[in-house]
Amino acid sequence: MSKYVVGLDYGTDSARAVVVDAANGETIATAVKYYPRWAEGMYCDPAANRYRQHPQDYIDVLEDSVREALAACPAGTAEKVVGIAFDTTGSTPVFTDEAGVPLSMKPEFAENPNAMFVLWKDHTAVHEAAEINRACAASSVDYSAYEGGIYSSEWFWAKALHVLREDKEVREAAYSLVEHCEWMPALLTGAKSAKDVVRSRCAEGHKAMWHPSWGGLPPEEFLTGIDPLLAGYRARLFTDTETADKPVGRLTAEWAGRLGLTTEVVVAGGAFDCHMGAVGADVTPHTFVRVIGTSTCDIMVASREEVGDKLIKGICGQVDGSVIPGMIGLEAGQSAFGDIYAWFRKLLEWPLKGLDAAERERISEGLIPALSEAAAELPIGEDAIVATDWMNGRRTPDANQLLKGTITGLTLGSDAPRVFRALVEATAFGSRAIVERFRGEGVRIDNVIGIGGIALKSPFVMQTLSDVLDMPIKVCRTDQACALGAAMFAATAAGVYAKVEDAQAAMSSGFASEYKPDAKNAALYRALYRKYLKLGAFTEKELFNEA
Amino acid sequence: MSKYVVGLDYGTDSARAVVVDAANGETIATAVKYYPRWAEGMYCDPAANRYRQHPQDYIDVLEDSVREALAACPAGTAEKVVGIAFDTTGSTPVFTDEAGVPLSMKPEFAENPNAMFVLWKDHTAVHEAAEINRACAASSVDYSAYEGGIYSSEWFWAKALHVLREDKEVREAAYSLVEHCEWMPALLTGAKSAKDVVRSRCAEGHKAMWHPSWGGLPPEEFLTGIDPLLAGYRARLFTDTETADKPVGRLTAEWAGRLGLTTEVVVAGGAFDCHMGAVGADVTPHTFVRVIGTSTCDIMVASREEVGDKLIKGICGQVDGSVIPGMIGLEAGQSAFGDIYAWFRKLLEWPLKGLDAAERERISEGLIPALSEAAAELPIGEDAIVATDWMNGRRTPDANQLLKGTITGLTLGSDAPRVFRALVEATAFGSRAIVERFRGEGVRIDNVIGIGGIALKSPFVMQTLSDVLDMPIKVCRTDQACALGAAMFAATAAGVYAKVEDAQAAMSSGFASEYKPDAKNAALYRALYRKYLKLGAFTEKELFNEA
Repeated sequence: MSKYVVGLDYGTDSARAVVVDAANGETIATAVKYYPRWAEGMYCDPAANRYRQHPQDYIDVLEDSVREALAACPAGTAEKVVGIAFDTTGSTPVFTDEAGVPLSMKPEFAENPNAMFVLWKDHTAVHEAAEINRACAASSVDYSAYEGGIYSSEWFWAKALHVLREDKEVREAAYSLVEHCEWMPALLTGAKSAKDVVRSRCAEGHKAMWHPSWGGLPPEEFLTGIDPLLAGYRARLFTDTETADKPVGRLTAEWAGRLGLTTEVVVAGGAFDCHMGAVGADVTPHTFVRVIGTSTCDIMVASREEVGDKLIKGICGQVDGSVIPGMIGLEAGQSAFGDIYAWFRKLLEWPLKGLDAAERERISEGLIPALSEAAAELPIGEDAIVATDWMNGRRTPDANQLLKGTITGLTLGSDAPRVFRALVEATAFGSRAIVERFRGEGVRIDNVIGIGGIALKSPFVMQTLSDVLDMPIKVCRTDQACALGAAMFAATAAGVYAKVEDAQAAMSSGFASEYKPDAKNAALYRALYRKYLKLGAFTEKELFNEA
Repeated sequence: MSKYVVGLDYGTDSARAVVVDAANGETIATAVKYYPRWAEGMYCDPAANRYRQHPQDYIDVLEDSVREALAACPAGTAEKVVGIAFDTTGSTPVFTDEAGVPLSMKPEFAENPNAMFVLWKDHTAVHEAAEINRACAASSVDYSAYEGGIYSSEWFWAKALHVLREDKEVREAAYSLVEHCEWMPALLTGAKSAKDVVRSRCAEGHKAMWHPSWGGLPPEEFLTGIDPLLAGYRARLFTDTETADKPVGRLTAEWAGRLGLTTEVVVAGGAFDCHMGAVGADVTPHTFVRVIGTSTCDIMVASREEVGDKLIKGICGQVDGSVIPGMIGLEAGQSAFGDIYAWFRKLLEWPLKGLDAAERERISEGLIPALSEAAAELPIGEDAIVATDWMNGRRTPDANQLLKGTITGLTLGSDAPRVFRALVEATAFGSRAIVERFRGEGVRIDNVIGIGGIALKSPFVMQTLSDVLDMPIKVCRTDQACALGAAMFAATAAGVYAKVEDAQAAMSSGFASEYKPDAKNAALYRALYRKYLKLGAFTEKELFNEA
C-alpha cells in the first residue's frame, strides 16, 4: 500500500503544504497560503523593525493549505498519509502560559503584539543582544560559542528579554516560551503543558545557547546576571532537545478532523526552514548547500569525527543533529545576496518616478535580466571594477553588522552592466570567503548544491558563482526543497525509513541543472578575489570600525 | 573718445567674439560660431582618440563671429576698436612650412589630418609621451620639472614626434610648428616666416618644456636623443617667448578689410583659454580661480618672491608670466568634475533605453537638478558614503592616469540622491586636495573664484564646495570670462592700460553671487575629508598601482 507524507514549510509571508509519496518523493500536490493578518501589515512597525505574527495566522494557513493540497490529490490519498512535519522561520519565539498556549491565543492578549510570535527579522531587541554579548564576554564560559560567538538581536533570549522589559501584562502572564517550529507539532499532538513541548535541537541549539557541554540552557545565574527578569525561565523551559526525525506524537482527533487526516498520522519534530531545506536538497558531508535568495543561508553537515568539539570560527552556529541526526549541522550565510541586485535595480529606477505605474513595472521587471544579459558579454576583469558585498553588513565569516559595501575601479566608462557584473562577482566572492573559512577550519567542501529563487532563475549569477568558487554547483529540481525536506522528516518519524539519509536516498527530487566551473575563468577570478579581500580588509579596518 | 576691444575665445567646439568697452569692460556684443568641419566630425577618429582641427575652421569662425558681433554694435563702433586678442585651447600645435603657414592651408595637404592642428584632447601620442618621460627621468636636468614632472600625450613635443613618425609627406614638408594661440596673431599681423611668429609664454612654458633656466627649449641632444626625427627643430623654432600683454603687431590691410576693422588695431599675444579666463575672472595673488565644467582648470598667480625658483610639487605647471606678466602663473585641475555627475546620470539612464527619444530626453534633462534637490536635503555624513573623484584618473595633485574612482559606505538604503551627494562631495574633496597641496608648498590661498557652467548653474555643488574648502567662493557675473580676459589683454596691448592689472581693475564684470562656508558643515566635512584621503591612499597604493 502506498504511503504519503505531508511537509509544511512556513516562510516569512506564506506557508506551503506538499503531499509527497513517501516511497519516491514524488510531489502529489502543493498548496500555498499567505498569512492573512500579516499580509495586511497587522501588528508590525517596519520603522521600528518590529515584526510580529499572530498564531491564528499559522493555524488558518495550516488548515487551508493542507485541505487544498489533499483536495488536489487522488481520492483516498488522505487516508494513506502516515506522517507530517514542519519547518518554520526562526528564531521566532512566543510567550506562553503554563499550558503552553501562546498568550495571544487568549482573548485578553489577542491584539497584543508582545504576546505574538516575534518573527526572525524583528530587530527590536538590539540593546538586549548587546547586553547578552557583554555577559558572554565577561563569563568564564562563552555561552554563544556554538552560535558563532556573537549573539544576535534576532534570537531567542534577546527577544524574550526585550518583551519582558517592555510589557508588564505579558511579563505577569508569561510562564514559558516556545519556538514556532516547536509549537506546530505541540499543537497538533495536543501537548498539555509548556513543559511537554518537545524542544527542537535545531532551534534551541542555534538560537538559545543550548549545548550539552553546559547541561542545556545557560545557568540561571548567567541569565539573571543579564537581567533578573529572566529568573525562573531556565527551570520552566527545558533541559533536553530532540532532533526532528523523532516522533512528537500523533494527530489529536480534533486536528485529524480539521485537516482531513487520520489520528494515525505521526507528527515529527520541528526545525528551521533552511535546515530541513538542506535535507530536501540532498545535503551530505562535504557538500555546501545554499539557499540563495535575498540573502543566503548556507548549511553543511559534518561527521562528529571531522568536527568533534572544535569550534568553527566565525560561522553562525554548529549544532549536533540540527540538520541530519548524528551529524554536526553547520550554518553560515551572507546577509545580502539577491538584495544587492535589488538595491542596484532600485538605484537605477530612481529616474522612473515620473512614469506611470504600469510602464515603471514593465521596465523594473526586465531590468535584472537585461543587466545580466549585457554583463554576461563582458570579459572577466577587463574593467577592474571590484566590489564588496556588505551592503547589509556581514553575517559570515565573522559577523559584523557595521560593515558596508564598496565599489572601486570606477571610470567614466563604467556603465550599468559593468557595475552590475561587479556586484554579482562581489556576492560570489562573499560566498568564496565562507567556503575558504570552512576549509581553513578543516571542513572539507567538494561541491555545492543551490536551492532558492536565484539558484533556479539566474544562470548568469550561478555560472559566475561556480567560476568564482571553482566548484560544480547542482541546482535542485524541486522549488520546494524545504517542504520536501519536511516530508523526508515526516517519513522518517513515521517509520517509513530508519533514518533521514534513507529518506533522502529514496525521496530526492534530483537536480535540474549543473553549473561547471570554467578553468580559465576560475583562474582570472582568483586574482580578482585577492583584490576583494584586500579591499574588504581595508574598509573593515580603516573605515567602518568607528561607526 | 570711447575705445573698444575685441576678445576672441577659441574653445573646443566653437569660438566666441566679444566687443567690449575698453573703459569699463561692458560687453557691447557677443557672437558664437561653431567650427563647420569639426561639427561634421571631419578629420577625427574618436575610437583612436584622434582629434584634429582644420585651420580654415578657425578662419571661417573668426570672420563670421567678429563681423556678426560688430554688426550688433552701435554704428561707428568698429572704427573705435583699438585692440584684439586671442585665447585658444592648448596644447594645439600644427606643422608649418618655412613661411609659417600651416601645412593643411596648402592644397596638397588640405585633407591630411596630420597637417592640421592637433587638438588638446588628441591622445594619439601616448607612446611618444612615455618616451619623453623616460628621457626626462634619464636626463641630469628634468626638462618637465616646471610642467608638473609628467609629460602628457596632450602636449607639444609628443604630438610633434607622433606626426613626424606617422606621416612621411608631412615630415618632408614640415619646417616648424606653431600653437593655435600663436598662429591667430601671426596670421592677422602678416608674419612672413615661422621664425617671425611671436611665441606664447603661456603655451610654450606650460607645454613645450620652455624655461629660461636652460636657455629656452630643451637642448638639441636631449630632443634627438628621444628621436633623431626631432633634429633641427629646436633651432628652427624659437628661443624667446612673450607674455600676452605685448603687441604682436597691427592688423594687415587684408585682415582689417576681412574683419571690418582698421589697420590701427593692435593684435596682442595669444595664450590658453583658462589663463586668460583667470585674468577675466579677476585673478589676484592668493585667489584660487577655477574654471568648473566637465573637468576643472585651476589657475593661480603668485609673486616671484612667494614662489621664486621653488618647484610646486604635483601641479600641472608654473610659468612666469603665463597668466599675469611679472607673476608666476600656476596651473592645476581635476580630470573630472561635472563629468562624474554626467557619468552617474548616464548610469541611471540605462533603464530608459526602451523609451522614446523625447521622453528619455525629458527625464535626462531633469535628472541632475532633481538629484541635487533631493541630495541637498540630506544631513552631512549621515550615510557614511564616501567616494573618490578619480573616475578619469587624477590630474592634480600628482598626476596619475591609472587611478580610478571608488564609492564606499554603501548600504541597501543608499538611494540615488545619497550616492549623488557622495559624488558631489568627492569632487569637492578632490578640490580640497589641490588647495592643500598649494598651501603645503607655501602658496597662500584665501578665497576662490568660480567660472564655467557648473559655477553659474549648480548652487548645490557650489555650496558643497564652499563648505568643503571652508572658503568663500565668488562666481563671476560674466559667462564669457575667457573672452573678457582676452579683451583685457587687447586693451593692455593697445596701450589703453599700462598693465593687465589696471585692465582688470577697470574692466571687471564683478560677481553674480558668493557662496559662504557654513562653519558647522565645514567641521563635519573635515572628518569626511580624512576618510576621503584614507580611501584614496589605500586604493592608489594597493589597487591601482599594478594596472
